[in-house]
Amino acid sequence: MEDFILTRDYFSLPKDIIYLNGNSLGPLPRATAENVQKVIKKEWGELLIDAWNEAYWIDTPTLLGEKIAKIIKAPSNTVVVGETLSIRLYQVLDAAIQLSKANKSTKTTILTDTGNFPTDRYIAQSLANRYSNTRVKTVPPDKIFENLNQDISILFLTEVDFKTGRLHDMQKINMRAKNLNIITIWDLAHSAGVIDINVKKANVDFAVGCTYKYLCGGPGSPAFLYTKKELLEGFSPTLTGWMGHEHPFSFKSNYTPARGISKFRIGTPEILQMAALESSLKIWNTIDVSQVRETSRYLTDVFIKEVKSGCPNLVLASPENSINRGSHVSFYSANGYPIIQALRSNGIIGDFREPNLMRFGFNPLFNSKQDAIFAAETLCRIILKREWEKPNFLKKKTVT
Amino acid sequence: MEDFILTRDYFSLPKDIIYLNGNSLGPLPRATAENVQKVIKKEWGELLIDAWNEAYWIDTPTLLGEKIAKIIKAPSNTVVVGETLSIRLYQVLDAAIQLSKANKSTKTTILTDTGNFPTDRYIAQSLANRYSNTRVKTVPPDKIFENLNQDISILFLTEVDFKTGRLHDMQKINMRAKNLNIITIWDLAHSAGVIDINVKKANVDFAVGCTYKYLCGGPGSPAFLYTKKELLEGFSPTLTGWMGHEHPFSFKSNYTPARGISKFRIGTPEILQMAALESSLKIWNTIDVSQVRETSRYLTDVFIKEVKSGCPNLVLASPENSINRGSHVSFYSANGYPIIQALRSNGIIGDFREPNLMRFGFNPLFNSKQDAIFAAETLCRIILKREWEKPNFLKKKTVT
Repeated sequence: MEDFILTRDYFSLPKDIIYLNGNSLGPLPRATAENVQKVIKKEWGELLIDAWNEAYWIDTPTLLGEKIAKIIKAPSNTVVVGETLSIRLYQVLDAAIQLSKANKSTKTTILTDTGNFPTDRYIAQSLANRYSNTRVKTVPPDKIFENLNQDISILFLTEVDFKTGRLHDMQKINMRAKNLNIITIWDLAHSAGVIDINVKKANVDFAVGCTYKYLCGGPGSPAFLYTKKELLEGFSPTLTGWMGHEHPFSFKSNYTPARGISKFRIGTPEILQMAALESSLKIWNTIDVSQVRETSRYLTDVFIKEVKSGCPNLVLASPENSINRGSHVSFYSANGYPIIQALRSNGIIGDFREPNLMRFGFNPLFNSKQDAIFAAETLCRIILKREWEKPNFLKKKTVT
Repeated sequence: MEDFILTRDYFSLPKDIIYLNGNSLGPLPRATAENVQKVIKKEWGELLIDAWNEAYWIDTPTLLGEKIAKIIKAPSNTVVVGETLSIRLYQVLDAAIQLSKANKSTKTTILTDTGNFPTDRYIAQSLANRYSNTRVKTVPPDKIFENLNQDISILFLTEVDFKTGRLHDMQKINMRAKNLNIITIWDLAHSAGVIDINVKKANVDFAVGCTYKYLCGGPGSPAFLYTKKELLEGFSPTLTGWMGHEHPFSFKSNYTPARGISKFRIGTPEILQMAALESSLKIWNTIDVSQVRETSRYLTDVFIKEVKSGCPNLVLASPENSINRGSHVSFYSANGYPIIQALRSNGIIGDFREPNLMRFGFNPLFNSKQDAIFAAETLCRIILKREWEKPNFLKKKTVT
């Protein structure tokens, strides 16, 4: 169960800290700084404009897409990288609504849950306002399955809840949705790289995700977008940037979308961010995500067990059974904010989410069983000895 | 007229080339590689998640916006940086259409011209398709002024034509549009950093631009967006990403837009791209853009004069008078592609645009009068001696 700790050396982590916030921003891979330098100095600096071809910059969104495809078990030529996750959410929802309108003449209902990330819900509502006869239906996460019926056109979920870590059973839910001819969209922000996803086997229609959490692409690393091949023809892109044109460099006055997944390209690719992401994705060449998932379940189990044993009154916000849990664990506490600060003073980096949630993310590529045990022990000591009441822990505020 | 050549040392340019393609991708500023390294190693690597606050990452879009504001002479708190230009175009057009619908009950007509960049026209058409009673009217650039009338709701132009370098008289056109209560949008992609723009004096409503051309922010450097303060309240964002929320970290289920220019923020900021842009914008702290503009006019004048003298049959695609011209010069030639390749073999980097356009961009921060003269002489020699017919010049193809 400890195999992955060998990969810790791929990362440049400060000494004497236990980083349990890789679910928010993954740490720096050791190879990244040098790769970004190479792209800046050798490609931009020396090749200048020619780097768009000679260094393959122009194809980076689909070249990196191929690497993401392997991680989420998508077929070749179905994933593209670039832009922010908010934009990718807009694109897939917009495409799904168009496909839904093309299928049915009646109302379009988008089913989502209260565990979906705020941006996801904002964008869904924004698009529902824009299209006629389109509405968003929001239910609690445990009511999703029973709400899948003929009245639903689009299912739109985040697989792992950013607060509680609750993990949807994608395979089961998606198969039921597809049996009902519902178009499905999954946000894999808290999944990619740590959950053993198989978008093909689960018959997922659309998926998006971010690359700066478990995939360690760096702050502002671009998003990815997956689309089932058969669906690529049935809609017109709304965000019609030149890089999604069939022939961008013919500079035609009318928009003709590119064939295939490049149809979802929009603007000029963020080459420096992509250079960082390229480095981190190389780590996944050497990794079996199913083994990462097993180790992640083990680590979060150990952490929960140790916390329960040390401070049994602390209330777990995450599912008890690791099969229903992503790779972060949350506890409720009215004193969550100062407790998280006190943990930081002890070198343990978790985070706090308003109003009362403490989150601890585990990435088996650099977090060990010892990390889980030491973090749990320190958390319990801080709570039992009320160390969080000491005012010097209250200096900094973390907001992300 | 040669003052600016002192700034050449700010840039890391390969020896023995004359780079006349800074209108497409600006060269690498010397300070950039180190600044990006600092952000990667010291901020991401050591501060990890805390860098969002401690290194001010979270505010980078508006902090860099302030620097762009100085360059385009916009008031404080009216410019934001981030996302791609395609997305920024969508946002300002969408806002303008909403403002137009709020003002008038009749049709919304967006006036643009054939010199507008393809993405701009694609996005305008995409939004026109989405809104009822909305259409795009496209006229030749020299017919814009006479087409400004009561039937036009929105004027949407790129100031400098990406092909010919034709420069619109923003002050004159915009003032007439505003006298007719037309909402105005300017794309400053080929202007920012080299044209002496004053969005406040010209009473511009919305402006967007890119930062990887004259501003030298690097490949995929994020776009900027300017909005007149009074207009910020009259519309609802469609691209409702979490970073544009009034309180992003309260994770509310409903979207309430931020106050001020942050209303246009969308996704998580591209911190590595912004680190590169931050370096290049520091150069502009030391620069008077009106002086850059004067030198740019001088350099393009010298280049045109020398070409005309050396090969009088070559047809100028750009305006003769520098007052009507941006900072690149174009010539038509049926043999444009091999001629550009032959120039490259002589260390002179221009570019070719289908079907017959040769473009030469001048950035006075690193291009000198000697560059202009030598480039013109070499161009004329290649044409007169038909050096472009030699097949070894045909190896590479440049597409960007």
